[in-house]
Amino acid sequence: MIDAGKPKPDDSHNSETAKPHTASFIAIGSEMLGPTRVDTNSLKVTAAFESFGIGVIRKSVVGDTQGELVDEIRYALAHADILVTSGGLGPTEDDMTREALAEALGLEMEVDAGIIDRLEKRFAARGWKMPEVNKRQANVFIGQTTLTNERGTAPGFHIEQGGKHVWVFPGVPHELEWMVASYLTPWLASITAGQSRFRRVLKIAGMTESGVEERLKPYYTAHPEPLTILATGGQIELHLAADGAESEALALIAALEAELLEIFGDKIFGADDDTLEGIVGRILTERGETVATAESCTGGLLASRITDVAGSSAYFMGGAVCYTAAAKTALAGVDPGLISEHGEVSEPVAIALARGARERFGTTYGIGVTGIAGPGGGTPEKPVGTVHIAVAGPGTHKHRKMLWPMERSLFKRITTQSALDLLRLFIVRA
Amino acid sequence: MIDAGKPKPDDSHNSETAKPHTASFIAIGSEMLGPTRVDTNSLKVTAAFESFGIGVIRKSVVGDTQGELVDEIRYALAHADILVTSGGLGPTEDDMTREALAEALGLEMEVDAGIIDRLEKRFAARGWKMPEVNKRQANVFIGQTTLTNERGTAPGFHIEQGGKHVWVFPGVPHELEWMVASYLTPWLASITAGQSRFRRVLKIAGMTESGVEERLKPYYTAHPEPLTILATGGQIELHLAADGAESEALALIAALEAELLEIFGDKIFGADDDTLEGIVGRILTERGETVATAESCTGGLLASRITDVAGSSAYFMGGAVCYTAAAKTALAGVDPGLISEHGEVSEPVAIALARGARERFGTTYGIGVTGIAGPGGGTPEKPVGTVHIAVAGPGTHKHRKMLWPMERSLFKRITTQSALDLLRLFIVRA
Repeated sequence: MIDAGKPKPDDSHNSETAKPHTASFIAIGSEMLGPTRVDTNSLKVTAAFESFGIGVIRKSVVGDTQGELVDEIRYALAHADILVTSGGLGPTEDDMTREALAEALGLEMEVDAGIIDRLEKRFAARGWKMPEVNKRQANVFIGQTTLTNERGTAPGFHIEQGGKHVWVFPGVPHELEWMVASYLTPWLASITAGQSRFRRVLKIAGMTESGVEERLKPYYTAHPEPLTILATGGQIELHLAADGAESEALALIAALEAELLEIFGDKIFGADDDTLEGIVGRILTERGETVATAESCTGGLLASRITDVAGSSAYFMGGAVCYTAAAKTALAGVDPGLISEHGEVSEPVAIALARGARERFGTTYGIGVTGIAGPGGGTPEKPVGTVHIAVAGPGTHKHRKMLWPMERSLFKRITTQSALDLLRLFIVRA
Repeated sequence: MIDAGKPKPDDSHNSETAKPHTASFIAIGSEMLGPTRVDTNSLKVTAAFESFGIGVIRKSVVGDTQGELVDEIRYALAHADILVTSGGLGPTEDDMTREALAEALGLEMEVDAGIIDRLEKRFAARGWKMPEVNKRQANVFIGQTTLTNERGTAPGFHIEQGGKHVWVFPGVPHELEWMVASYLTPWLASITAGQSRFRRVLKIAGMTESGVEERLKPYYTAHPEPLTILATGGQIELHLAADGAESEALALIAALEAELLEIFGDKIFGADDDTLEGIVGRILTERGETVATAESCTGGLLASRITDVAGSSAYFMGGAVCYTAAAKTALAGVDPGLISEHGEVSEPVAIALARGARERFGTTYGIGVTGIAGPGGGTPEKPVGTVHIAVAGPGTHKHRKMLWPMERSLFKRITTQSALDLLRLFIVRA
């Protein structure tokens, strides 16, 4: 992966070299200084540093202005041991990362004929002639390491100077991701000698953040280890982290996870990248069972989330979006008398919707949702945010009433989260 | 809005003061240096600067470390005329923006008894006693302007020193937004004396980016003014911008918009904050008409997007999510013979779904969608991404076949975008 034309022993593997402790990041590009775009490359880079326990002390965005860029590079290197830059490696005149690095670090550049050759072949393979400007991308630093970019035309660099390290990556996200995985991560693994940060995220639906905090009090007393709690869109995440050698760190995390499972039991629906719709899909697939929906106030979002999972056609038969009383009767067979007696937003109607979905689509389970999304339609007895959810299965059902008085799209998101979790608990607790 | 206790004439209104030309932003908080969260406050701040034609030359994120913060403030002010900071104004020990500013700028602080009084009342109004730590939030800079924060406990500051301006805002997004609107924007309006940048975004659905580019060639030749094209989730945005006095800038934008309307006609569905579901809702509301859906591969997302609009219950009667052939027949009355002859993914079935939705729900229009979201289920004749969309109205219908071979959630998003646009054009071209 290292250019053969620019050999340079990477003596950072040498155990005499002190382990760098701090890192810094610069995203280069004027387009990220406007009101519409944020830098997201830094998330990939800081994730790499964090997984090896190296702290990122600052990150910045600067435009394509050589003077500003030179100062920023010098400032960043004065404050941290490692600097990663992204962007400004393209072929045009406003791509000036190479020139700024040369000026900031007092480096000389030369043309790498091998790179020109590779670029010409790359263009020829697409039936094109290489534009003259692309030759700029063959300018490399004398005595430093050039990094081949298998996903684009701009090579990257690893520059070492006075014990500091600069990693220079292109700004195109999928190119940067490949460079981070191919060069930065292995290097971090080598310099940290197996010392690393490990993480585990446990996910809970159907509880409030303060409810989770309340139950965690004894845990907090017993454990000084970091546990971050994040509440996002109808679920609570518990973030466990441990530094150190892999086996010990994973053992510590497993022990903490066991304690949290003891506290929360099956309220924890999954871990790491799990989604509630994915977990529900996995359970239904394993059991060879099926589901259908009849939803009102969530307007189709419940069905849409279930069908976001690849392979969901194996267990999802369909759904009815019943935005009127007439539709509840026509599509889910809800008795009009039930609606006139209890109102559209009521426990009996939610249960009738769940049963109706189950019968109409011939599925193992049916989910019924009815509520008031707002902003209009609330009454003193049934304020905006009132919602009734029911799950019907063979011979039995379960119902929950909730109140989510919040903005429409968040209401829909949290209500579908509650409905999916009700189905999950209905099945696993049966 | 300016604290009465800290009067200070804002001499930036003085016409002798040179107009500041560059701005810089620092987001303060260690949580934004990890792999999960990005700073978004800078977007609100850079939007304010951009609307007055002041360039943001850099922005950065630093942790809650006083030494780093002091250096960063000095560096930022050495490079730009205006600095905005967000965050680090809370009551706890790791909130050190005040102390860092005092050190970096050589300012003295004092306790503002009026702030303590207001904080105590704020807590008392909720039935709580103010925690002792909150007294830190009453520390203000002697001789500088303190800014009341009507949305939280942390006041902000406007510091002037040597012709440079520092605006210090809290990090909580809805507090920062209020501070920007209440203090920064009016100040920028005053110092720029009506000079400003104006924007207009025109939105197109149902065209590819290269198709739009192709039609724009004559426009590009005629106009050197900036026109940015952004493609996101099934729509193309044309961004017009003009600097200068309001009436002239708006006239220029109006003239350019008229030319673009000449080129694209009713392919432009809206402008600025318009969404396709919002536009469709507005059209239906104006006409007193209604719609229903019968969708397969979009799995409920079409109905969900329609019901994302507040007030949609006035024109959306409901929908069927038909994930199986049986459901297409049972819920939308599709003739089983039609399915066995043409297949579930076909023009006749899409039209039958649209008609079925219209009839079942008794609406003015029906939308039918059937296709193959993938990753499985494709054939050589009907590859993954094939989709048939139909709209049925009184006595007539319209159909479109498309191919969107892409990741499942993007497929669903783009397909629903196409379906909403087909309905819009069906109505406005009738």
